[in-house]
Amino acid sequence: MLTNNQQLLIGWGDCDPAGIVFYPRYFAWFDAATAALFAAAGLPIHKLFPDYGIAGMPMVETKARFIEPSRFGDEVRIESTISEFRRSSFDVRHRLFRGETLTVEGFETRVWTIWDPENPGRLKGKSIPEDVIALFNKA
Amino acid sequence: MLTNNQQLLIGWGDCDPAGIVFYPRYFAWFDAATAALFAAAGLPIHKLFPDYGIAGMPMVETKARFIEPSRFGDEVRIESTISEFRRSSFDVRHRLFRGETLTVEGFETRVWTIWDPENPGRLKGKSIPEDVIALFNKA
Amino acid sequence: MLTNNQQLLIGWGDCDPAGIVFYPRYFAWFDAATAALFAAAGLPIHKLFPDYGIAGMPMVETKARFIEPSRFGDEVRIESTISEFRRSSFDVRHRLFRGETLTVEGFETRVWTIWDPENPGRLKGKSIPEDVIALFNKA
Amino acid sequence: MLTNNQQLLIGWGDCDPAGIVFYPRYFAWFDAATAALFAAAGLPIHKLFPDYGIAGMPMVETKARFIEPSRFGDEVRIESTISEFRRSSFDVRHRLFRGETLTVEGFETRVWTIWDPENPGRLKGKSIPEDVIALFNKA
Repeated sequence: MLTNNQQLLIGWGDCDPAGIVFYPRYFAWFDAATAALFAAAGLPIHKLFPDYGIAGMPMVETKARFIEPSRFGDEVRIESTISEFRRSSFDVRHRLFRGETLTVEGFETRVWTIWDPENPGRLKGKSIPEDVIALFNKA
Repeated sequence: MLTNNQQLLIGWGDCDPAGIVFYPRYFAWFDAATAALFAAAGLPIHKLFPDYGIAGMPMVETKARFIEPSRFGDEVRIESTISEFRRSSFDVRHRLFRGETLTVEGFETRVWTIWDPENPGRLKGKSIPEDVIALFNKA
Repeated sequence: MLTNNQQLLIGWGDCDPAGIVFYPRYFAWFDAATAALFAAAGLPIHKLFPDYGIAGMPMVETKARFIEPSRFGDEVRIESTISEFRRSSFDVRHRLFRGETLTVEGFETRVWTIWDPENPGRLKGKSIPEDVIALFNKA
Repeated sequence: MLTNNQQLLIGWGDCDPAGIVFYPRYFAWFDAATAALFAAAGLPIHKLFPDYGIAGMPMVETKARFIEPSRFGDEVRIESTISEFRRSSFDVRHRLFRGETLTVEGFETRVWTIWDPENPGRLKGKSIPEDVIALFNKA
């Protein structure tokens, strides 16, 4: 599976009074890391949506395990990959490393959605195209 | 002029490793306080936009002066008022108090805008309706 | 078990270009809701830490399920309760409602920690005092 | 004066329902850009504080002018420089460009502070060392 890496420098404003990353920030970084993973596959999200006629890839469930805290000034790396494609949903796994140390693991389940033609303003799941899946498998 | 007050409890995630509010948070609160001021005038923003055909009230300039820091668990009050209406722009002033102490002052200049009928996708300023201004003056 | 409710007005800056809440925001609200739950039990966190000599209640795992999106201007309610106390860790469950509709569920596992006297700068888990647990059970 | 440049990719979660950057985000980026400017001068902030015995460089006033909005997927550049050093305070100017277009200007006034030895828990301004100023002037 295609794996993408992103470097990140922990900022002052990302940290809380305990001096460690305020955990909701990890989810914002993971969201951006999923966008970067799609871009690395040749599918930057701002093109993906119009090109494939999708309304988005909304999150239906996300989880994170916090193993070690990170602090202001730490340089970390987020390693992202799609762990499973199903018919109209898929799972993304993110692992955040500081040096060789795994510090946070993130899991996302997202749905490939279109605007429901029968229910204006509502989304519905759609089969993920084979050519999209192929872009992640070949690497 | 109509003045609106909002109570706010400073959260853990609003503060930085020095234990004080990370200052960009004040701007997010001031933005919400402007929305609350319009709601107090009878113009909740999610109705204001469609009712008056405006595209929004984008910020063109904002400023803040930081007098005293606030900390996790502090209860503060934001006092907001429109300090001046011009033809198509207006100024909002926010003052954040902890007890009787003025701790932060914020200033906003915003523009009353519509979608430009001659330039699709572009905004243009428009005269602020008299009845809107009247709602802020009467109080 | 003690249950606490918090009202929340979804702000413009909480929402993304799809017009719905950017999901990391839910985690920031859940974190504040846990603080509010402890305050409702008579243990405001900024007193809890010094009074019980703890260093904090760091998150070791958190999860959310997103059932329905919420939008700018929506008024929502977060219902929070501790679903289980273990020796030195506990689970918090948050449910976010818009009217009667359950829209998001959040789960947290946190640890009751002290500064490890044998390893300066490191945290270690500690038994949660019976009187703390009693405050949540009696309601 | 030393000038530092930072590249930035606008993320989905940085934008609001109008599809443009939610302006408080600019202040968070400017704060990180000031840290990057000091790092470029050889003074990474997490070393600067202990090395020079300062408690921080708190913001006393900040301002931004918004000229053009930016959107999800835009690549922008923040150009940062110190526009003036005074005895114990200094001004930072940030300019955010999309291509050649100046889109946002930011201004900061910060104070070089130490813990006041005569008032425990209070900060006081201190003269900025000549060797610090020299690091910004030589470039």
